[in-house]
Amino acid sequence: MRPIGYWLSAALPCLLVHTSTGAVDDAIRMPAGYRDWPVITVAHEAGSFNDLRAVLGNEVAIKAFRGGTRPFPDGSIIARLAWRYVPSPQNDAVFGQTQSSVAGAATNVQFMVKDSKRFAATGGWGFAQFDAGQPVKPAALASCFPCHRQITPQDLVFSHYSP
Amino acid sequence: MRPIGYWLSAALPCLLVHTSTGAVDDAIRMPAGYRDWPVITVAHEAGSFNDLRAVLGNEVAIKAFRGGTRPFPDGSIIARLAWRYVPSPQNDAVFGQTQSSVAGAATNVQFMVKDSKRFAATGGWGFAQFDAGQPVKPAALASCFPCHRQITPQDLVFSHYSP
Repeated sequence: MRPIGYWLSAALPCLLVHTSTGAVDDAIRMPAGYRDWPVITVAHEAGSFNDLRAVLGNEVAIKAFRGGTRPFPDGSIIARLAWRYVPSPQNDAVFGQTQSSVAGAATNVQFMVKDSKRFAATGGWGFAQFDAGQPVKPAALASCFPCHRQITPQDLVFSHYSP
Repeated sequence: MRPIGYWLSAALPCLLVHTSTGAVDDAIRMPAGYRDWPVITVAHEAGSFNDLRAVLGNEVAIKAFRGGTRPFPDGSIIARLAWRYVPSPQNDAVFGQTQSSVAGAATNVQFMVKDSKRFAATGGWGFAQFDAGQPVKPAALASCFPCHRQITPQDLVFSHYSP
């Protein structure tokens, strides 16, 4: 049986939870069901990333992407899944040449959560990363905003919707 | 107002439609809502394809992928979307190096539809392709099965599910 916290976080992924000390734990929870969200786009990052990635969006984000709404409305959540960029001997054998690179092991999952009040200090976006399902400490995410803020005309979002 | 045929094909994407001559038009319709289906995996095909692709699945297919069910049950539909593999000067400028390849213009959308009786001659799978929303003639799809049949242990499906 799952703990009640699971169901709370499933229903309210961005719920602010008061801890036993009364302080606010403002960690971003992993949004329930994100793995089933529609695709915004895909990409290949070479260099130290060396990954293939899929960018997914919740209903609010997808609607904004498709409608061209900027800035994104509060409640938008963007998920970035990534997997090692690996060759596919299976596919290449069929095609008769080296051409196919596929998704290997998962690397991490990142989220951008739009809440213009809660995350006012970082352009209205909260950033989170999960490694094997475990949240990365906020201090390790300090490098997110300095890059994303350079994409101001797109409300800090690198991805463009791919129809 | 949409014609009745739209709603029929939306509800029953693989419906066999009797034409006015009484013959069976067995073309595979574009499944309604496929763009919102969950991601199975992503890939990069170099060579003449030169694309980035996302492989999506309907509910039956996704369940089979996640559960490791092979052969895929009838009703499984797999969608392969692809876009030109293009560099991203926008992203590279932020990262300070050449590393980012993203999805450019859409190329085409392909579907594999599992119906072990209807498509018995091709391993239980029907193949379809749409260029800018228009179906490609079946004769042009004759090259699908000879490659897919080489992936027999995976029931003719190249893709592996990426968690």
